[in-house]
Amino acid sequence: MSTSSFARLPGFRDFPPEDLALRSHIMEAWRRVSRRYGFLEYDGPPLESLDLYVEKSGEEIVDQLYAFTDKGDREVTLRPEMTPSLARILGDRSRSMSKPIRWFSMPQLFRYERQQRGRLREHFQWNVDLVGEEGVAADAEVLAVAIDGLREFGLGASDFRARVSDRRVLRGLLATLGVAEDAQPAAFAVIDKLERMPRDKAEEALATGTGLDAAAAGHVLETVSSATLASLEDLVGSSESGADVQSLRDYVDALGAMGLGDFVEIDLTIVRGLAYYTGIVFELFDRKGELRAICGGGRYDRLLELVGGEPLPAVGFGMGDVVLGELLAERKLVPEFASTLDYFIVTVSWDLRSEALRVAHALRDKGHSVSYALREQGVGKQMKSASREGAREVLIVGPDELARGCVVARDMEVGTEREIELADLT
Amino acid sequence: MSTSSFARLPGFRDFPPEDLALRSHIMEAWRRVSRRYGFLEYDGPPLESLDLYVEKSGEEIVDQLYAFTDKGDREVTLRPEMTPSLARILGDRSRSMSKPIRWFSMPQLFRYERQQRGRLREHFQWNVDLVGEEGVAADAEVLAVAIDGLREFGLGASDFRARVSDRRVLRGLLATLGVAEDAQPAAFAVIDKLERMPRDKAEEALATGTGLDAAAAGHVLETVSSATLASLEDLVGSSESGADVQSLRDYVDALGAMGLGDFVEIDLTIVRGLAYYTGIVFELFDRKGELRAICGGGRYDRLLELVGGEPLPAVGFGMGDVVLGELLAERKLVPEFASTLDYFIVTVSWDLRSEALRVAHALRDKGHSVSYALREQGVGKQMKSASREGAREVLIVGPDELARGCVVARDMEVGTEREIELADLT
Repeated sequence: MSTSSFARLPGFRDFPPEDLALRSHIMEAWRRVSRRYGFLEYDGPPLESLDLYVEKSGEEIVDQLYAFTDKGDREVTLRPEMTPSLARILGDRSRSMSKPIRWFSMPQLFRYERQQRGRLREHFQWNVDLVGEEGVAADAEVLAVAIDGLREFGLGASDFRARVSDRRVLRGLLATLGVAEDAQPAAFAVIDKLERMPRDKAEEALATGTGLDAAAAGHVLETVSSATLASLEDLVGSSESGADVQSLRDYVDALGAMGLGDFVEIDLTIVRGLAYYTGIVFELFDRKGELRAICGGGRYDRLLELVGGEPLPAVGFGMGDVVLGELLAERKLVPEFASTLDYFIVTVSWDLRSEALRVAHALRDKGHSVSYALREQGVGKQMKSASREGAREVLIVGPDELARGCVVARDMEVGTEREIELADLT
Repeated sequence: MSTSSFARLPGFRDFPPEDLALRSHIMEAWRRVSRRYGFLEYDGPPLESLDLYVEKSGEEIVDQLYAFTDKGDREVTLRPEMTPSLARILGDRSRSMSKPIRWFSMPQLFRYERQQRGRLREHFQWNVDLVGEEGVAADAEVLAVAIDGLREFGLGASDFRARVSDRRVLRGLLATLGVAEDAQPAAFAVIDKLERMPRDKAEEALATGTGLDAAAAGHVLETVSSATLASLEDLVGSSESGADVQSLRDYVDALGAMGLGDFVEIDLTIVRGLAYYTGIVFELFDRKGELRAICGGGRYDRLLELVGGEPLPAVGFGMGDVVLGELLAERKLVPEFASTLDYFIVTVSWDLRSEALRVAHALRDKGHSVSYALREQGVGKQMKSASREGAREVLIVGPDELARGCVVARDMEVGTEREIELADLT
C-alpha cells in the first residue's frame, strides 16, 4: 500500500500531546476569562446546512466553504464561522430567555480556499456574544472580554492594542469632509485598504472614486487616519452623527474605568469586511504589526432576525488560535511541555506486584497521578522511567519495608528519602 | 425564507449551556482519570482520507461513513473512529518515542447510516490507548482506566460491570468441546448473537453451522456462556491455549489487587465485532442490562502495522458520551445545571458606574466571576438579575458608602450585609 494514502489532509493539523498542550492552555484561559464575565459555554454541530451561510453572506461565500452534498442529498458544509449557528440555536429559544444572553463557544471552524496552498483549512475560534442589549455598555463589556482574553496569557499593552471604529461615525466624518452620500462606498473601499497601499495611490483612488480633487482627497485620508475622540467631537459632534460620537466616548470611558484604557485606540481605518456589522467594530493587533488581526468583532444588531429569529441587538467577537499561537511563541509565552506525575511506583521484585497495584490504585482514588512499569524490570530501569515521566516522588515497594508495613518515598527533585506507612497511603 | 432551511441537520446535537454543562462534566471526569493513569491528551483532524478506514475495515464500512469527495477531488470522510488517526499519527513518530506510549483523546466521531432515522450521527468518544507493551499488565491497566472512568461519576459495582473475553481462549474451549477448526467462525457468529436470540434457536443454528448434534450444541452453548476462570482452567488449562487462560488469570488478579475485582466478569459470549482485536477484549454494561454497551475495547496488536507504522502491540478502548449520559440520567447522577457568579455589582445610580466598573474589573483580575446591569436600572431590578444569575454576593455601590470608601456586600444565601473597604477590593 502507498503510505501517501495515510497522510493527513492538507490544511489540517494533528495535535500530538505537545501541541494539544498549547491548544488546551489557550482554551482554558479563554474559558476562565469567559466565566469571569458571567458567560456560559455552548456548542453546535460542526456540520450545518449550507443555506445557513448563503442567506447571510451571499452565494460568493460558498467558494470558500468546505461544502458538499451528503448521502441524503443535502447541501451541507463544515461550519466556517459560529455566529450563524448561534443565531439558529437562539432562534428557537431566545423569546423565553432573560436578557442579556451571555454565551461563549470555542468551535473548530473550516474553510476551503482552493488557491492558497499551505494555508490552514481549520482553526479553533473563541466566540463571545452578548445578545439582547443595545446599549454601548455591552460593547465595552465585550471588548473587555477580548482584551482580558489576551492579558490572561501575560500579554500587556506593549504587546497588543484594540483598534476601534464605528462606521456611522466614519460616515458622519466623510459627510463633514465633503464626500457625497453616493461616493461613500468608494471611500470605504479605499479606507479599508489604506494600510496595504501607498498613500499617493490611495489619494488617487479616493479622488477617482469620489470626484474630490487631489488636495481634498489627501485631507480626507489624513483626517480619517489621524482621527481621535477629541477631533471627532470637534468635527462631527454637532452633526447628526453626534450621538454616535458620544457613544464612542462612553465606550472608551467605560474601558478606561476598567483599567483597560491603554489598550484602546480609535482608528477609523478599521472597516470590518462582513456586511452585518451595524455599530462599533474592533480588531486586536500585535503592537509590532507583524501578524494578521488576532481578533475581530463588533455590534451586529440584525443577524438574528436574518436567520429567522427574534430581532435582537447583539455584540460579539471571534479570536482564533493560530495567530494567537504565533504571538505567544514570538513573546516566549508558550509554557514548556513536560509530562508530570505525582508518583511512580518502583517494585523491587515482580512478586510484590499486587501490593504495588494496591498502593497505586489507592493513590489514584485520592486523585493523584501514578504510573509504574508494566513488565518486570530492574530497579534502575524503573527509576529511569520515573524520571522520564516526570514523577515528583518515587515509591519503592521492597520486601523488607513491606514486612514493616512501609514503602520508601524518594523525592525526585531533592533526592531525599523517607519511609511512609502503607496505612497512610491506602 | 423557509425556516426549515435553518434547522439543525438530522442526527446532530446542539449544546446550549445546560447540555454543554453535562458534556463538560463527562469530559472533565474522563480527563481527570486519564491523567491519574499518566495518559497524555492528543487529537487529530475531524476529517481524514477515506483510505485510512477502507484499508483497515474493508470497503463495506464506507456505507456507514460520513464520506464525500472534496473540492480537490479527494475521497474524504468525517472520522468514524479514532484509532486509525492514532495509528497514522504514531506511524510518523513512534520509533523515536519511549514505550509504552499512553495517549488519550475525546474526539467527536461521525457515522452516516442511511436507514436508521432518529439515531444520532455523531457522538463524543473517550479513546484511551496504551501502545508498545504486549504484557497483560497493560490490558489490566487499560480496563482499570475504563472502570475508573465510570466510578468517577459516582457509579459503582452495583451499576455496571466489565464483561471480559479472549477469543484465543474461546477458540481453545471450542476445540476442547469438539468444534472443528473450520466450524469455528460459524460458532463465533452464533455466540456473538447469543444474547439476542432464544436458546433453542441458537442451539439449532450452532448445530447447523458446526455439524454437531443438538445435545452437543446445547452443551457447547451452556459451557461457553457459564464459563468462569476456574472452569476454563479445568477445561483448557492444559491445552495449547493454557497460556492464554493463565494470562486471563493474571489480568483478573491485577484488577483484583487494584480493588476492582467486583467489576470484572469473565464472559466468553463477548465477541467484539471489529476484525482487528487479537487478545483480551471487554465491554462495559449497566447491570440492569437496559442500555447498549457503554464502552468496548481490547488488544489490537496488528493495527499500527496495517496503517504503515512500526509493528507495535496496543490495547485500548472507546467510551461514548451518549449511552453514558443515559446511564447517568437514569441513576440521577447528572449535576443540576445552575449559573453561578461570585459577585453581582448593584449601582445605586448610573453616575456611579465608573466606580462600579473599577470594582468589577479589579475583582475579575483576581479571578472572580462578576456581572452587573448593562443599562440604567432600579436597585430592585438589579437585585433580581443578581439572583437569577446565581450571584453568591451582591456588592452595592452607593453614594454614601463610596464617600466613606466602602461598598455594602450582601450575602445572597444568608441575607447578611457588611461593609467592605474599596481598598480591599481593588
